[in-house]
Amino acid sequence: MSDVDFYAARMDRAVRSAAQEGLAGLIIMPGPDLVWLCGYVPVVTERLTALVLSPGRRPQLLVPQLERPDAEKAPAAGSLAINGWVDGENPYAALAKLLEPQGRYGVSDNAWALHLLALQRTCPGLGWGALTEAMPMLRAVKDAQEIEALAAAGAAADATYEAITELPFAGRREHEVAADLARLLREHGHSQVDFTIVGSGPNGANPHHEAGERVIEDGDMVVLDFGGLKDGYGSDTTRTVHVGEPTAEERKVHDLVREAQQAAFEAVRPGVACQEIDRVARQVIRRAGYGEYFIHRTGHGIGVTTHEPPYMVEGEHLPLVPGMCFSIEPGIYLPGRFGVRIEDIVVCTDSGARRLNNTERELRIVR
Amino acid sequence: MSDVDFYAARMDRAVRSAAQEGLAGLIIMPGPDLVWLCGYVPVVTERLTALVLSPGRRPQLLVPQLERPDAEKAPAAGSLAINGWVDGENPYAALAKLLEPQGRYGVSDNAWALHLLALQRTCPGLGWGALTEAMPMLRAVKDAQEIEALAAAGAAADATYEAITELPFAGRREHEVAADLARLLREHGHSQVDFTIVGSGPNGANPHHEAGERVIEDGDMVVLDFGGLKDGYGSDTTRTVHVGEPTAEERKVHDLVREAQQAAFEAVRPGVACQEIDRVARQVIRRAGYGEYFIHRTGHGIGVTTHEPPYMVEGEHLPLVPGMCFSIEPGIYLPGRFGVRIEDIVVCTDSGARRLNNTERELRIVR
Repeated sequence: MSDVDFYAARMDRAVRSAAQEGLAGLIIMPGPDLVWLCGYVPVVTERLTALVLSPGRRPQLLVPQLERPDAEKAPAAGSLAINGWVDGENPYAALAKLLEPQGRYGVSDNAWALHLLALQRTCPGLGWGALTEAMPMLRAVKDAQEIEALAAAGAAADATYEAITELPFAGRREHEVAADLARLLREHGHSQVDFTIVGSGPNGANPHHEAGERVIEDGDMVVLDFGGLKDGYGSDTTRTVHVGEPTAEERKVHDLVREAQQAAFEAVRPGVACQEIDRVARQVIRRAGYGEYFIHRTGHGIGVTTHEPPYMVEGEHLPLVPGMCFSIEPGIYLPGRFGVRIEDIVVCTDSGARRLNNTERELRIVR
Repeated sequence: MSDVDFYAARMDRAVRSAAQEGLAGLIIMPGPDLVWLCGYVPVVTERLTALVLSPGRRPQLLVPQLERPDAEKAPAAGSLAINGWVDGENPYAALAKLLEPQGRYGVSDNAWALHLLALQRTCPGLGWGALTEAMPMLRAVKDAQEIEALAAAGAAADATYEAITELPFAGRREHEVAADLARLLREHGHSQVDFTIVGSGPNGANPHHEAGERVIEDGDMVVLDFGGLKDGYGSDTTRTVHVGEPTAEERKVHDLVREAQQAAFEAVRPGVACQEIDRVARQVIRRAGYGEYFIHRTGHGIGVTTHEPPYMVEGEHLPLVPGMCFSIEPGIYLPGRFGVRIEDIVVCTDSGARRLNNTERELRIVR
């Protein structure tokens, strides 16, 4: 299939889903939706760029005139009508001309408020909804090629883990280990590094601690959570390692998180609600008396971004479908002491989950 | 002044401006506004983080509970009330509790539509405006410390230009030169590289061409436009160089752009409308018969981002104020042939403009 046909099919699928949801169309702004639907990656600025998809009409791409040459090189350009607007013109009036006078439009989650508010003012007759709320499934189910890309990104993250655990930890600052993680991800083919969390000792008890000045010591638990984009698809994996011999309690907490992660993994099958995956992991931890220390949801989808639907969280009733790719990442965070998190990306298949991260989940001892 | 007092003064100034504009308050989302107002730099995700500023009330920061430890380390934390929400809760209901029941709120330009739409649904009695439209001046006038930071970023970009023009051009691909620009910006203290445009020969006629596979040849004009963030403040400069001896026409077009840039520079003084800077540059180019080839506005503000108000564009009536920092970057783009752009960041002072980029503007010959 040519690039043009490939993206045309995706745009067509999106339009049909939108119509099923009762939407007059979709307004796609620069970011992951635009990349996914037409392969176009403009710089995100205050200048309006928008793709309008509506049933029965050719896809319309509105771009700043000075970016038209780039837009014309987009992989999907052959199936787009490209419209330019010039600095000093009102781009929202130009966009309004591409919309129906009435109805509800789905808008990219990450569209800027600046643009949305101007559009709401320009088109008072229209209604608006965020794309992932109106159509959470749009990018949630990955095709075989996408799963391959996610598996390759996962393998690169796994290789990064194998390499980082060969290096010394004790005596180095967290941000030095984080810099090594970023370097290794790039060496293993990542074009973009999104996060390199190194949470040692008490810092590990802060799930979103990035990496700081703390010098890692012998006896520390260290949470390593890292990922980014390789060939346009995301990686995201977490392992918790120990510098030297762990205490019995550290082992116990690590084993418990591993058990919760395994239980959630085994619960994955088509038709199960996303929140059930969260509940299964949470129940293991709660029953062992650590429920109050598992302070985040169990997982999130991954694709052309590292955080997207479906979310494995209480209240998410969306059923799992073969091809959905998401993280399973329970954790226990003991304030002021240490944290443990274990995270794999998995893909839902007809027969259950398949892991896209495959390094050992046992507590690894590092230097 | 302590960090806490410094940011408290900024938040206080923002609240007073908001009240003057008739706003009930401001809702600040992760990004440049949040950095500028309280020094807090969370990861931007689908999880809601918002700072609410309202007259007579302590600033309220709403964060995902798992990011609370990071929020508590923000430079302005001492003057913030920090509120956490937990995965599975409705963060918009939590945010609504921090808002007045009626009135109009200014929202960060780059707030996600996902969040804004949910908030609009949760608070149907409220009105909304984009921050730069409601308060274009909020970050537009820089204090002495900010101007120093922008000058330092400009000097680093200038050093990058001096270094890149020592390197060979002919025979190398655009993206190789772009990679050198990125490396040099980092070597000169940039923590973030935002763009490295290398537009050689006909590619230079596309103002936003990034850098491609084209091999630069002897006889090419090459547009070099690069910048990013150094110590939190932006750089952005453009010079057009020539590989070997230029033709008479190439020299003429380059001289004309230089003349337009100089004329706009000389037009800067307090009280002049932004659009006047655009008109002055455009008139020089138009009178010489090249008006149709100058296809973008003349400039944009710069600060904690590389694109922000004030914009030097037709229709922008905002008057220049001492402390405003912005680009002056006219260009001429001859389709299929070559382009020329010359760009300096300038600061408006009581007595006119001061340049923060100071490399020579004459056409430099490279190898």
